[in-house]
Order: sequence, then structure tokens, then C-alpha cells
Amino acid sequence: MLTEPQRDCTDVVLVSPRNPLNIGAAARAMANFGFSHLTVVAPYEAHWREAKSAIGAEDLLQNAKREECLAEAVAECTLVVGTGTLAHRRPEQTVTALPELGPRIAQELEQGGRVALIFGPEKRGLTRDDLALCHLLVEIPTHPRQPSMNLGQAVAVCLYELAAREFRPVPDENTDENVAQPADSATADAASAPERNPACTRDLDLVAAVVAETMQAANYSPAAMQKVNRHDLNLLLRRLALTRRDARRILGLFRRILWRIQP
Amino acid sequence: MLTEPQRDCTDVVLVSPRNPLNIGAAARAMANFGFSHLTVVAPYEAHWREAKSAIGAEDLLQNAKREECLAEAVAECTLVVGTGTLAHRRPEQTVTALPELGPRIAQELEQGGRVALIFGPEKRGLTRDDLALCHLLVEIPTHPRQPSMNLGQAVAVCLYELAAREFRPVPDENTDENVAQPADSATADAASAPERNPACTRDLDLVAAVVAETMQAANYSPAAMQKVNRHDLNLLLRRLALTRRDARRILGLFRRILWRIQP
Repeated sequence: MLTEPQRDCTDVVLVSPRNPLNIGAAARAMANFGFSHLTVVAPYEAHWREAKSAIGAEDLLQNAKREECLAEAVAECTLVVGTGTLAHRRPEQTVTALPELGPRIAQELEQGGRVALIFGPEKRGLTRDDLALCHLLVEIPTHPRQPSMNLGQAVAVCLYELAAREFRPVPDENTDENVAQPADSATADAASAPERNPACTRDLDLVAAVVAETMQAANYSPAAMQKVNRHDLNLLLRRLALTRRDARRILGLFRRILWRIQP
Repeated sequence: MLTEPQRDCTDVVLVSPRNPLNIGAAARAMANFGFSHLTVVAPYEAHWREAKSAIGAEDLLQNAKREECLAEAVAECTLVVGTGTLAHRRPEQTVTALPELGPRIAQELEQGGRVALIFGPEKRGLTRDDLALCHLLVEIPTHPRQPSMNLGQAVAVCLYELAAREFRPVPDENTDENVAQPADSATADAASAPERNPACTRDLDLVAAVVAETMQAANYSPAAMQKVNRHDLNLLLRRLALTRRDARRILGLFRRILWRIQP
């Protein structure tokens, strides 16, 4: 069960929702389970206006953030969780069943991270490129005969799982070190303390951009491969679970390389 | 997690649903989580027709049972569970938080019972009389600022909890006796085996009717009290957790009394 401050560090992100009723239903479920940060990515203009002006629309709908692309919407987030039916896809990253998601999110939030839970458009779900921005995918265990859930209901079920159910925290491999370490020395004595500051989407995007530029500058692969390379790079960077410090170092190294190999 | 045969002995009952979209959403959630028995009680005619004729309507909507009163809809059920927001009510029976509901329902189904999960109309929820037909009430742990859930979302969250989550069975006080008892002797040797055959709503209604008649025949209380007495009697009979055999005996006794005191 996420605490109220933890729910306050969790964004619900709807990508191009089509049906104003579903947008309203998602907002209602957020209010039901105590979440307040809604971001809408590239909504269909008329539908978005209609949802906001509906009678009884939630306040959080009025205060929703609006972004034109998913990367911008999750720029500050250190853990991005994609939802959807995976029945007909071969996922390229870790898939967690919804009942197991809570402890993973709680752990991220305890480490000072910010979490986004992403829901795709009603018909087609999240695209492959959207999914490449996710650290992990969550699957609601639905029946094989009708796996695909209605958007508003999927939001309700996910938030119920996170906010209303008790769950046990994931066992932390570093517990012993953490206990030995006084809390306030964690940043002061960074050399010996395990760094707990995960890179956010913006950090990873900076790294991905400079690595991609380096690939091109080094003629690493034909131009036709650039899109594929960037996709794989996005997935790889999220799998590595980099800290901000890792990200800064890699960025510095690649900028240096780039400076040397560029004409 | 209820097994498929257990879900097949579980009815979802919507009482006078108003919004065709909510009826459709409830049916969709049932299909998502592998439930197939839907009963609709006294639906608003036009809305019910609209829901059934919607594009993409679930098959189970076409096959839904329709009843004019709740007692008829749950006549065969041995455990009737009412849902709703209890924030502004003083419930007269046991209230279980949704995350604790699964083991109770599984236990009932393991004993050969049939379970109904009742959802009231969108605006006002279940009436006091509806609730008196319930053995227990379930509460979805929502936020105090917005406790009331949308109907379709409430159905989705409840069915997710029952069908998609693991839960541990309730410890059974009679386990030792059951282990000592071969399964097939349970009915043959009813005197020593604990009876496991719970009374259904129809059994309890027969008892309630004859007790009410006896009260009147005996001038137990003024006519103005009859409705209140029946309400309390309904609650009492469900709290007693009678077996079918108990119900038959009480019925026989009261019929006998009635025969004696009637002029």
C-alpha cells in the first residue's frame, strides 16, 4: 500500500486517450484511490475539452498536465511503468504481474524516485516506441478469452492494487550496508555509500542522444539502422538501472569521444 | 484466486442499473476476469435494451438473467455479498474490506455454496432492504475525499481481487474433523459429520415468511412494526449461518406453532 506522500510522487499518464468518458473515469479512479497527478499526452483536442468540461469532472482533471510527447511527460520520472495487454506482443523488457507491482514501486519511491504509470490509447495501446521508454511493463492477469480491458477500468484496477492493498516490501540486497550507514552520511560519503539516486528519463534521453550522435559520427552502422539502434539503446539504458551519477559519467565520456571523432 | 469452476458458481448481480455504458462495462470486466453469470434486477427497460444491443456487447450480456426483485435473483445463493460505499451508513452486518473477501468466498464455494456479488444503482446504491438480504457487506478501501466509485470500475476492482490475486484460505476450525472424515461419508453419516450445506436465500425466505406470519398470528407486535420486524428477521437469519437442515427444522417448528395458534 503506497502512503499518501508516495502516491503524491506517482504520475498517471494517459497517452492520446480518445473517449472523454474514459478520461473522466480515469480521473475518478485516481480520486477514489488518492492519486492526484494526471498527465495527458497528445490528447484528441475535442475529446480532451469535452472531458474537462463534463459535469462532475474531477478537480485533478482541471489541473492535469498536458504534454505533446511521452518522453516529455515522464522526463522527471525514474521508474516508468507501461501497462497494456501483452497477449500479442513479444515484450522486450521485464514484465511484472500487477499483484507484484506494488513492492517494486514502493522501493523506487523510498529511494526518492518518481514513478509514472502509463496507459495507451483505447484501441491500439502503447506503441513500440512508447514501450521503449518504460523500465518495466505490468500485466493485469486477465482471462485469455477477453484479455483487453477498458481504459477506465484498467486504471481503477491498477490504482486499487497500489493504494488499497497491503504488500510486503521487496527484500533489499543492500540492507546490511544501509543499517551500518547513518542516514545523513549517505550523500556526504558517496564513495562508500551505495548511491541511491536513480537517473530519470531526461538524464537517459541526454545519454541516448549523445551515444546516437557518436554512432553516426563513427559510421557505426548504415543510416537505415539509426531508428532501430535508438530503440535498442532506449531499452538498454533502462535495463542498466543507471544512477544520475552513472548517467553524467557516460555522458561526459561520449561527449569527449564525439569531440575527438568529429571532423 | 477463485478457480474457474468457482467463478462459475459466482453470480454478479446489478440492481436497477441506469447507465447502459455501465452495464456494458460491468459485462466487460466479467469477461476480463472469467466470470460468466450476470443477473440484472429490475433494469430500466430502455437502458437495458440499449446495453444489450451495443456494438461489441459481451455474449454474457445476451445471456444475462433478468429478475424483478433481488430476493428472486439470489434465491439459490448461500452467500450474498453487498457492495457499496458505507461512508454515510451504519451497516447492520459484518463489513469486510475487499482485500479480505476472497478467502471467505472461496470457503463458501468449497463447501458447495453459491455466491452472489450485488451492486446497487449508480446514484443511490443498495437500499436498506436490499442490504438485509446480504450475509456480509464488502467495502472497497477508497479515499475519504472521493469514496464513491463508478459502477463499472467497482465491478472491475472486485472481480480483479477475486480472480486475479492469490489469497490464502481462511483457517478452518473444523479441519481436524474433516481430515478424519472420508469425503463420501459426509452426507451418509450426517449425525457425526459437521453439516456443510448452507441454506440459500430461498430457504431463508421461507423461514422468514412463516416466522413473520407467526408473529402476526400471535399478536407479537403492532401492525406498524411488521416491516421493521421483517427487516430485523432477515438480518438475524443471515447472521445465524443456518444450514439447509437448520432451516427445514425451524420451518417445521414454526409451521406447527402457527397451526396451533391460528383460529
